[in-house]
Amino acid sequence: MTFDVVVDISLRPGISDPEGATIERSCAALGFDGISDVAVGKTVRFTLDAADEAAARAEVEDLCNKFLTNPVIEEAEVRLAPSDSMAAAPAGAA
Amino acid sequence: MTFDVVVDISLRPGISDPEGATIERSCAALGFDGISDVAVGKTVRFTLDAADEAAARAEVEDLCNKFLTNPVIEEAEVRLAPSDSMAAAPAGAA
Repeated sequence: MTFDVVVDISLRPGISDPEGATIERSCAALGFDGISDVAVGKTVRFTLDAADEAAARAEVEDLCNKFLTNPVIEEAEVRLAPSDSMAAAPAGAA
Repeated sequence: MTFDVVVDISLRPGISDPEGATIERSCAALGFDGISDVAVGKTVRFTLDAADEAAARAEVEDLCNKFLTNPVIEEAEVRLAPSDSMAAAPAGAA
């Protein structure tokens, strides 16, 4: 099966976010009022071939811990869904 | 009203993504198979005070075009929802 995966990586609460602080100051300087608590994160999107959803989720969790994130300062939210292309594939294809 | 805003910024289709390509090559080298079409993006989360949802959405669109994104190579998806804190606020507070 093919899955569309989105890994939404953000800093853990309490970790300083200089990029977010800079954006927050700049918004006020540019005249955009009412903006606070700015936090910057990263998304990694990809297509994953896996036997089933459980295997896909396990591989992505492993990938996050070993490579995509720094678990000490970052946390990742994984969103995973079967690819649309699956609908177009002939019934026999897995 | 207070809104929780997520601006999900990604490269427009066709724009080269060296960071995504590097991650894709590294995944294979680290033994993570079946990963393709890796694309890296950015998220900016913040709290926004605005009169109503329409005003909030207009301000965020303006902020994206003028500051948060480079409309030539990037596109932004805006997700906006009233803050939970609104539920805790006394009925009179707006």
